[in-house]
Amino acid sequence: MKFNKNLQNLKNYEAGKPIELVVREYGINEKDVIKLASNENPFGTSEVVSKGIAEISNKAHLYPDDSYFELKDALAKKYNIDVKNILIGQGSDQVIEYCVHAKANENSAILTAGVTFAMYEIYAKQVGAKVIKTTSQTHDLNEFKELYNKHKDEISIIFLCMPNNPLGECISKDEIYDFIATIDKDVMVVVDAAYMDFASYKDTKMQIQPDDLIKNFQNAIFTATFSKSYGLGGMRVGYAIANSSVISELAKLRAPFNITTLSLKAAILALSDESFVSKTMKNNFKEMIKYENFAKEFGLEYINSYTNFITIKFNKENSSQICQNLLKKGIILRDLKSYGLNAIRITIGKSEQNDKVIDELREILK
Amino acid sequence: MKFNKNLQNLKNYEAGKPIELVVREYGINEKDVIKLASNENPFGTSEVVSKGIAEISNKAHLYPDDSYFELKDALAKKYNIDVKNILIGQGSDQVIEYCVHAKANENSAILTAGVTFAMYEIYAKQVGAKVIKTTSQTHDLNEFKELYNKHKDEISIIFLCMPNNPLGECISKDEIYDFIATIDKDVMVVVDAAYMDFASYKDTKMQIQPDDLIKNFQNAIFTATFSKSYGLGGMRVGYAIANSSVISELAKLRAPFNITTLSLKAAILALSDESFVSKTMKNNFKEMIKYENFAKEFGLEYINSYTNFITIKFNKENSSQICQNLLKKGIILRDLKSYGLNAIRITIGKSEQNDKVIDELREILK
Repeated sequence: MKFNKNLQNLKNYEAGKPIELVVREYGINEKDVIKLASNENPFGTSEVVSKGIAEISNKAHLYPDDSYFELKDALAKKYNIDVKNILIGQGSDQVIEYCVHAKANENSAILTAGVTFAMYEIYAKQVGAKVIKTTSQTHDLNEFKELYNKHKDEISIIFLCMPNNPLGECISKDEIYDFIATIDKDVMVVVDAAYMDFASYKDTKMQIQPDDLIKNFQNAIFTATFSKSYGLGGMRVGYAIANSSVISELAKLRAPFNITTLSLKAAILALSDESFVSKTMKNNFKEMIKYENFAKEFGLEYINSYTNFITIKFNKENSSQICQNLLKKGIILRDLKSYGLNAIRITIGKSEQNDKVIDELREILK
Repeated sequence: MKFNKNLQNLKNYEAGKPIELVVREYGINEKDVIKLASNENPFGTSEVVSKGIAEISNKAHLYPDDSYFELKDALAKKYNIDVKNILIGQGSDQVIEYCVHAKANENSAILTAGVTFAMYEIYAKQVGAKVIKTTSQTHDLNEFKELYNKHKDEISIIFLCMPNNPLGECISKDEIYDFIATIDKDVMVVVDAAYMDFASYKDTKMQIQPDDLIKNFQNAIFTATFSKSYGLGGMRVGYAIANSSVISELAKLRAPFNITTLSLKAAILALSDESFVSKTMKNNFKEMIKYENFAKEFGLEYINSYTNFITIKFNKENSSQICQNLLKKGIILRDLKSYGLNAIRITIGKSEQNDKVIDELREILK
């Protein structure tokens, strides 16, 4: 059977290795595994949320309220926007998919940073769109402008991953605004803000507020997730915020019940527990210093991170080899070799986890 | 901002009304609402499953094992197939989406029954494919053949919803096989078996077994779900079974983590609790007789159903009016007016729920 030709260019996304795999393959006890590979929240699930999930565990047979009324209402209050400005997705991945499927096609291109969230490219290739990347791995807005002007007639979407995953850099709100102002109103500009709350916590100059963004730019879409600071990676809830005329178009691509009944409840409860997020932020930037100091000590380059992870580049050592060695000891980190970097992305864990990881890295590098 | 032109022809799927809406709009106590609108399991969530979900409610921050190893292994054993024959989706809706996005396009068409699962058409329109439907509302394989021969050069997918949702009819395995045998091997034939276990229970002649189906037809895809007999509508887990060369192509369209960590666990546990499914089947067909008798008594046409719902057509009364009146009393049924039928689809509930619904219908029709 022949398939659509776009599939020929598609590879699957390489997901982080799960704890189950290390348990299965290396016979390590689940409790001894340290997974700092997928930017999950090191404090786990907020107690408010886990209690709420357990309470409705007997409602698994019921489809969710597909209007997502309560969740949208809570998000609208949080961001000072209208429910009509919100679209809920199965993770922010899915709203990004809607953006690409709604706007890109075989005759158009998307523009992204050299190294950024892999799904932009995968979704673009699904619809046969071309992918234009900056030669700079991190976001270089001058190069974005240059490429935009050069490929003006074909670029339909620009992705700005702020801060960037998997590298961690961020650009100030003012610079982002100046850049978007130069873009044609018919080009979609997606500000992927999956880690934006980390960036805002570290430096308020980085903070892009969705209500302000969409008021200023009718072609801008702000995407965010419950997977990181809110600790709901496993529940798969994200959202897009944009002008209502944009949301109503994207919504045509949403299948009903695209998040689970338990995920809906979890997201609503997570929004009510901001103290969990505060604790997460505080730990994150305090602990990140340990990795920075480690890198400095060993003369390794690292990217100044505005996220809940840090990317450390290696010199003579091979990042894949290091990850493989650590895996056997039950430590899961994210090798960035498939992104073309001899680097490792480490999620900032709890104090004792970070200490253990750094000890093991020292052992390898000494 | 302009969007891809395919979006112009798209409307959203109209989901069944949730209990929350009735509570919100009519001030009815949640406990008093009878929802027989979305073919959810009337026995709720299996205790084995709800206990299992509650136990891992503190794992909501962890992404699932994206290989879905344990679930695929259990499904492979159930169906006597290989894990490479399985693709997991966010409900069977999503694997159907993959089928359409992988095979249909602006230059092709899909072929379906006159009244069938609405998502086939929605997904087809997303990719700009044409939708060809039989004039017969239920599946008429002669008309399918006729239309297939007439539009041979453009039909890329044929959908057979066995048994059919929202009408409930089914066609024997032998007839389905005879039909598929006449179809070109490059045309994808999707056997949507969301309700197949109900049909098999009622009459083994209807039973299509996926291992046998894909052995006989390299172009056939069997899709199924945990939403109905397994009672996991709210957890959103479905799957496709096909030859591994087909699965590997469809898999290119799957984004990572397309089901939740809790959904993965729920589905694995649901497969271990077949007694829950047996109880469901027994109740379903025993209780369905009540609706059949009611329809006969009032001279209403109904479709002989092989599913967990029954579709009753009305004569002079307006189905929308009836549903609206019942809604005010806290009874949610599914009006089929949007499908072009003056009919109501009723999920078979528990004994006392069915008695109450029939009493109210009697009251309206008397």
